Amino acid sequence: MAKFPEIEGGGSLMLAWQIRNKLVLMVGGGEVAAGRILNLLNSDAKIRLISPRDGLNDEVAHRVEQGLVEYIDRTFEPSDLDDPAIAMVMTAIDDPEASTMIWKLCKEKRIVANIADVPPECDFYFGSQYRDGPLQIMVSTSGNGPRMANIVRRRIAASLPPNMGEAIKKVGALRKKLRVVAPGNEEGPKRMKWYVYPSLC
Amino acid sequence: MAKFPEIEGGGSLMLAWQIRNKLVLMVGGGEVAAGRILNLLNSDAKIRLISPRDGLNDEVAHRVEQGLVEYIDRTFEPSDLDDPAIAMVMTAIDDPEASTMIWKLCKEKRIVANIADVPPECDFYFGSQYRDGPLQIMVSTSGNGPRMANIVRRRIAASLPPNMGEAIKKVGALRKKLRVVAPGNEEGPKRMKWYVYPSLC
Repeated sequence: MAKFPEIEGGGSLMLAWQIRNKLVLMVGGGEVAAGRILNLLNSDAKIRLISPRDGLNDEVAHRVEQGLVEYIDRTFEPSDLDDPAIAMVMTAIDDPEASTMIWKLCKEKRIVANIADVPPECDFYFGSQYRDGPLQIMVSTSGNGPRMANIVRRRIAASLPPNMGEAIKKVGALRKKLRVVAPGNEEGPKRMKWYVYPSLC
Repeated sequence: MAKFPEIEGGGSLMLAWQIRNKLVLMVGGGEVAAGRILNLLNSDAKIRLISPRDGLNDEVAHRVEQGLVEYIDRTFEPSDLDDPAIAMVMTAIDDPEASTMIWKLCKEKRIVANIADVPPECDFYFGSQYRDGPLQIMVSTSGNGPRMANIVRRRIAASLPPNMGEAIKKVGALRKKLRVVAPGNEEGPKRMKWYVYPSLC
């Protein structure tokens, strides 16, 4: 038996990115963009969408109408990256040359980016996701098959009780209450941190 | 019924970060750092560790001995961030002032960073993780309880067949073979991309 955990290699670094109230530049407004935008709105990001109006699919157009995204009706221009508030860039356009140019500009400016359908031009990928309120689960198969990821996600969904998200919410509320009612009961500084910053996990 | 998916809000953006062959600066070499380093090695990152030798825990010292991390035996200096190859910074040190300084420097330089135990100074958090070869699953409860995340992770682990990782590997190998044997069978350009870049998911 190894004294320390063994290295496995070949995986992705799975992360819960904190994009709340940060500005994401979305270039392109088609079907792929619609999925990205939904993901971003579910994470409370601010979205600036750049796409000619005739390139918007119905869902994206609906988000624009709802006022949920800031909308710029034209194609991308390099100066779009000049805003220092931009925390992340995603593209989903059918123009490989423009995509690569945007990727290179992002890397020059050290802006994290995802160029849809061009994995070498992505700082991160999306996996297959399950969500039930505060509970979020992501499945990745390291490129061995998106269908397998979806199968695993469905298996997971079937194995969890339907009220899991609600139960987690209640535990969270209870933890907050305990903090107010019995602050003396907290167990030392390490534990305290969980109470002060309940968003570690 | 809504025509388009409804917005839920309050979640993290779950990502599979591609850190393979990229340089991560790890500041601190204690127990928390040991977990981070294991995570990074499992993702094939290159690691530069900065920590005085007497701050290394046994596991971290072991990784240094194994030659798995580049090791600098001293405390952090601002010039450590000057190397343009640095793709990510993680700190796990018991010095809030130094931590905050590192965070601010990272943000000035637009380097993504995670300051352990200080969520407001983190671009991303880690969730509870399950891994079986190429299969990676991450569970996040949006801060409602790390223990709940662990419970869900264990439930997931129990619900998956023990050979799931192996099965996914075989499907991946089969897809690669199909590409070589019957390239004519590929279904159009969208599908083709999956074969050329099998790491989308």
